[in-house]
Amino acid sequence: MAVSSKLQGIFTPNMVPLDHEGKIDESGLRAYVDWLIERGVHGLYPNGSTGEFTRFTPAERRRIIEIIVDQAAGRVPILAGAAEANVRETIAACEYYHGLGVRAVAIVSPYYYRLSPDNVYAYFREIARNTPVDVTLYNIPMFASPIDLPTIQRLSEECERIVAIKDSSGDVGQMMRMIEAIRPNRPDFSFMTGWDAVLMPMLMIGADGGTNVTSGVAPELTKKLYEAATTGKVEEARRLQYLVRQIFDKLLFGADFPEACRVAIELRGLKMGPTRQPLSEDHKKTLAELEPQLCTLFAAAGVECDGGTVGTLSAKEIGRVVASVLETFQAQGRF
Amino acid sequence: MAVSSKLQGIFTPNMVPLDHEGKIDESGLRAYVDWLIERGVHGLYPNGSTGEFTRFTPAERRRIIEIIVDQAAGRVPILAGAAEANVRETIAACEYYHGLGVRAVAIVSPYYYRLSPDNVYAYFREIARNTPVDVTLYNIPMFASPIDLPTIQRLSEECERIVAIKDSSGDVGQMMRMIEAIRPNRPDFSFMTGWDAVLMPMLMIGADGGTNVTSGVAPELTKKLYEAATTGKVEEARRLQYLVRQIFDKLLFGADFPEACRVAIELRGLKMGPTRQPLSEDHKKTLAELEPQLCTLFAAAGVECDGGTVGTLSAKEIGRVVASVLETFQAQGRF
Amino acid sequence: MAVSSKLQGIFTPNMVPLDHEGKIDESGLRAYVDWLIERGVHGLYPNGSTGEFTRFTPAERRRIIEIIVDQAAGRVPILAGAAEANVRETIAACEYYHGLGVRAVAIVSPYYYRLSPDNVYAYFREIARNTPVDVTLYNIPMFASPIDLPTIQRLSEECERIVAIKDSSGDVGQMMRMIEAIRPNRPDFSFMTGWDAVLMPMLMIGADGGTNVTSGVAPELTKKLYEAATTGKVEEARRLQYLVRQIFDKLLFGADFPEACRVAIELRGLKMGPTRQPLSEDHKKTLAELEPQLCTLFAAAGVECDGGTVGTLSAKEIGRVVASVLETFQAQGRF
Amino acid sequence: MAVSSKLQGIFTPNMVPLDHEGKIDESGLRAYVDWLIERGVHGLYPNGSTGEFTRFTPAERRRIIEIIVDQAAGRVPILAGAAEANVRETIAACEYYHGLGVRAVAIVSPYYYRLSPDNVYAYFREIARNTPVDVTLYNIPMFASPIDLPTIQRLSEECERIVAIKDSSGDVGQMMRMIEAIRPNRPDFSFMTGWDAVLMPMLMIGADGGTNVTSGVAPELTKKLYEAATTGKVEEARRLQYLVRQIFDKLLFGADFPEACRVAIELRGLKMGPTRQPLSEDHKKTLAELEPQLCTLFAAAGVECDGGTVGTLSAKEIGRVVASVLETFQAQGRF
Repeated sequence: MAVSSKLQGIFTPNMVPLDHEGKIDESGLRAYVDWLIERGVHGLYPNGSTGEFTRFTPAERRRIIEIIVDQAAGRVPILAGAAEANVRETIAACEYYHGLGVRAVAIVSPYYYRLSPDNVYAYFREIARNTPVDVTLYNIPMFASPIDLPTIQRLSEECERIVAIKDSSGDVGQMMRMIEAIRPNRPDFSFMTGWDAVLMPMLMIGADGGTNVTSGVAPELTKKLYEAATTGKVEEARRLQYLVRQIFDKLLFGADFPEACRVAIELRGLKMGPTRQPLSEDHKKTLAELEPQLCTLFAAAGVECDGGTVGTLSAKEIGRVVASVLETFQAQGRF
Repeated sequence: MAVSSKLQGIFTPNMVPLDHEGKIDESGLRAYVDWLIERGVHGLYPNGSTGEFTRFTPAERRRIIEIIVDQAAGRVPILAGAAEANVRETIAACEYYHGLGVRAVAIVSPYYYRLSPDNVYAYFREIARNTPVDVTLYNIPMFASPIDLPTIQRLSEECERIVAIKDSSGDVGQMMRMIEAIRPNRPDFSFMTGWDAVLMPMLMIGADGGTNVTSGVAPELTKKLYEAATTGKVEEARRLQYLVRQIFDKLLFGADFPEACRVAIELRGLKMGPTRQPLSEDHKKTLAELEPQLCTLFAAAGVECDGGTVGTLSAKEIGRVVASVLETFQAQGRF
Repeated sequence: MAVSSKLQGIFTPNMVPLDHEGKIDESGLRAYVDWLIERGVHGLYPNGSTGEFTRFTPAERRRIIEIIVDQAAGRVPILAGAAEANVRETIAACEYYHGLGVRAVAIVSPYYYRLSPDNVYAYFREIARNTPVDVTLYNIPMFASPIDLPTIQRLSEECERIVAIKDSSGDVGQMMRMIEAIRPNRPDFSFMTGWDAVLMPMLMIGADGGTNVTSGVAPELTKKLYEAATTGKVEEARRLQYLVRQIFDKLLFGADFPEACRVAIELRGLKMGPTRQPLSEDHKKTLAELEPQLCTLFAAAGVECDGGTVGTLSAKEIGRVVASVLETFQAQGRF
Repeated sequence: MAVSSKLQGIFTPNMVPLDHEGKIDESGLRAYVDWLIERGVHGLYPNGSTGEFTRFTPAERRRIIEIIVDQAAGRVPILAGAAEANVRETIAACEYYHGLGVRAVAIVSPYYYRLSPDNVYAYFREIARNTPVDVTLYNIPMFASPIDLPTIQRLSEECERIVAIKDSSGDVGQMMRMIEAIRPNRPDFSFMTGWDAVLMPMLMIGADGGTNVTSGVAPELTKKLYEAATTGKVEEARRLQYLVRQIFDKLLFGADFPEACRVAIELRGLKMGPTRQPLSEDHKKTLAELEPQLCTLFAAAGVECDGGTVGTLSAKEIGRVVASVLETFQAQGRF
């Protein structure tokens, strides 16, 4: 993908495996990158919310991008999360990631403080004027200051450097409002959704792709949905959208985000290691209960579980059982 | 449509014209009913939020249904809003509307007080057990106690009398969750959306239809969208969805709901009369400013404006001007 | 209290007892009115949220005021809830209640629809211009359109007929903002709080009184708190405020409002009859569990329970046990 | 104040002056510390929300505490904000600040992600078990995961190291709930409010003090309020509370927090330097308009403005004019 091409497709917001001391597990991360690329994701998106960017130090965040760029080795473009403590540090990170060769950076709206729209605008304008790399606005109103429509429109008109919005609100009507307001003047501008529950509808009304957490745990499935939805296979897309939404709901609402993702990825046979967030006993139990649920959803979606055990059964065995039950039921016309 | 058929298609939530004294304008209402049916709506839905049911007295609400059933004369099914002050009064209204021959009633969740899910359940169960007519649950969380998914599922399983949900949350993912939870056990159960901004996505993921405010002002347009979306014309449906959403946004957010609807219907050439809600000078100005905006949107969507004047121009003339400008621009390839 | 005197003190938002058929229990209501007046409340406030005004028909709401005015017989002033379906019906109710001799009416901001501030203003202005009776604005943002500060200020400046605000937001800072904005120009304007959890702080910063749900179940307690807080007995007021808040929390959050009030009043020895809101089995269990909790709180506050039984014990006996335990603990210096 | 004494009084959440390059202005910070201590604040609270902790790097946050501890030189206790990217880094910061001699640390609940109560519990438990210094829980639900009452109670019971809560919700009823639940078992536990608008009510119902932003701009005023409220001077406390709330409202709502604080401190004659948050032209205008408003409020409260100019007048001159106008009006009995 050339540097100037429009962002589109599925950019996977990847987690970062940790070793038993809680440090970045570099070989694990490299293995995960390979695993994702082999399964067809169109790009990688490290240091996003799924990637727990707030739980790493500034130095670790840079190291993560270094490893991923190196391991991807040009096979897929990298969209690097670049938000730091303040605008000066953020611009410095943008420069560093540009030097590494990322396709673009994604910058979340200021968080902790809830800024007014005009200062959200000022923040991104300051970055856009001073960075050598393309910028994706990252709107995630449940975690950070909202980037409202007039602000996005104004930034898209004034700042060529800003080339995309990643929207994690899940509001399909709002996505249409954004596309309508911006695309006529900026046909190169990309609209990416971070809300997998409605990926098919988003693509149907004109979004360009997504940064989808499900693609980090079941990349083959999310990609199939993307392809069905963008080639007009409505029936197939609908079927896949229901499966993707089921997994998405577990990842988002099954436990404090993004803990369930770690569990899901391990079920696929990768090593993720411990979390940096202390978990209560209740929450650990919740995560344990999620395992067979995720196994079942994976099996129903035809996604193979290679790792982990649930009770005395391996995830793989559970997958086989569920698949066989489903097959029998379908043969009996039960759905 | 036989009494037992599944609810589907577009049920228009109609307003009620008032005379200069603020009383129900019966001939105006009859004319509006004819106008809607002639433009192809599949059903009528009086005494809903658009119909300002809370601003009429109990006697007036009954009179509205009488007039509409009489005027529709079996041409389309009637879904009658039947919420009254308490469960006993509501059941009495259900009986009365059943006697008039309505297809079903729609009952909004208890409002003013915000009830817990288990009492929302108890409320609808009590009605379902004691009414001779099919019941549609009406979920509109911005105005009334939310009806959450476990409650809908439980009611659908326990109460045959409950045959549909009208959901005005606009959350496409949530609609999928409802369909997934209920349709396998209740294939006769209907899923209707009240959020026109996403009518196409809702239909694409399996909803059965809508009770859509835009169909009260531009019935031909909403119907075209419904037909395109349900016959797999994705491109056409997308184009229409953008137009419908533009009008919807003005109706919902252009003024305090549903004041803008009154303005829009008058632009179509019908008489609506005054509102029962005192309006501030500012709000009257806002409504006046909405007129040319709505005219322009109607013209862009190929919907004729027959009534009203904007400044010295009639709505019809404005429509012609906009249409001609659009044609010129398109001929020049400007969009 | 002369008609023109400023509203102040505790106005009890009273419930309405129902008979076994769910109709207004007139003799029960008269007994309740006497019981409250005998325990020193400064006024009565029927047809408020506690009084479940939305669950009665227009005719019933009028009957309730008739009974209460007749029974109070001038012993205390009546603040009559007068909100009806629309502004014309509301004004008619105001006229009727004025004819009955109420001190003032209280009118909740329009509900169901959430109106913009300028139409909330227009609504109250229309009423104020056309009513012969003093009007109290009733702000309860959790149930109805908020009445914001600029709106209250504007109404207080333009409409002499508007003489008070009853605020149920519980925001002490906001009460100070209101007092500061309005009192200099309208020294006759009253500021009443509906949030018993902070009655003492509200009175300490200058509020004139309250319409307090606890005064409907423990009038002697709420009144003592009012007197301590308004006569500078800070220690005593603080002690009582903690007790009042405990009871308030059960009434507000122990069950769907105002079901727990019915339980609490019955524990005091009055008959309330059934609710008009169908209750789930879970909710009935919750209400049963509230009984001993309320008994204990009443006992701790020195409020006598005369009615009901909890298991095999009468409420009165439980009260005695709790009081004796508390006495022993205090004698042992345990608190 | 001995290390083991209970936290009480006013702990000032101080800002950090920056030089023209946006770096920490060490001499400015030292001057500000002296200025605050000379005006009687009981403690300092650096690296809080007012202190913009999220906009500094980890190294800068440590440097800020070093400077402040050094400059305070034991004159007042230091409550050091210690939240870092993850629990390990946070514990390391606690150890470092303990080594510097701070009285306690304050740790904000995890932000960005909204954690469930049981993981908020797990987070603080992990810190409390592994830190050598007393910990203050910092609850600020508008910016970070809420710390709910059961969580606070559980932590207070299980962790001796946790000695206080700083609550910035401003909910007086909730403060009473906390005090009631925790004080009987932990008489040493402190309850501090961060919501100056209700500092008097909070102290009246039993809070121990506050971390109040107004004390960073008008320390003499906030302190006077604290003293009046804790010595039973109700009238005086009420009068001061209205003045403090007026200033607080400007600091909180006059501009994106905490930009207005910078303006206010400069009006007092101290140098604060530029902000790290890029500001829009509109926001700069808003801040300029705040200057005369703050001057007027300071003058009305008898707080001297020594710095800055508003138009052609110095802040000091404006103060004199306002004070003289007020005096004349009062002499005329106008308030």
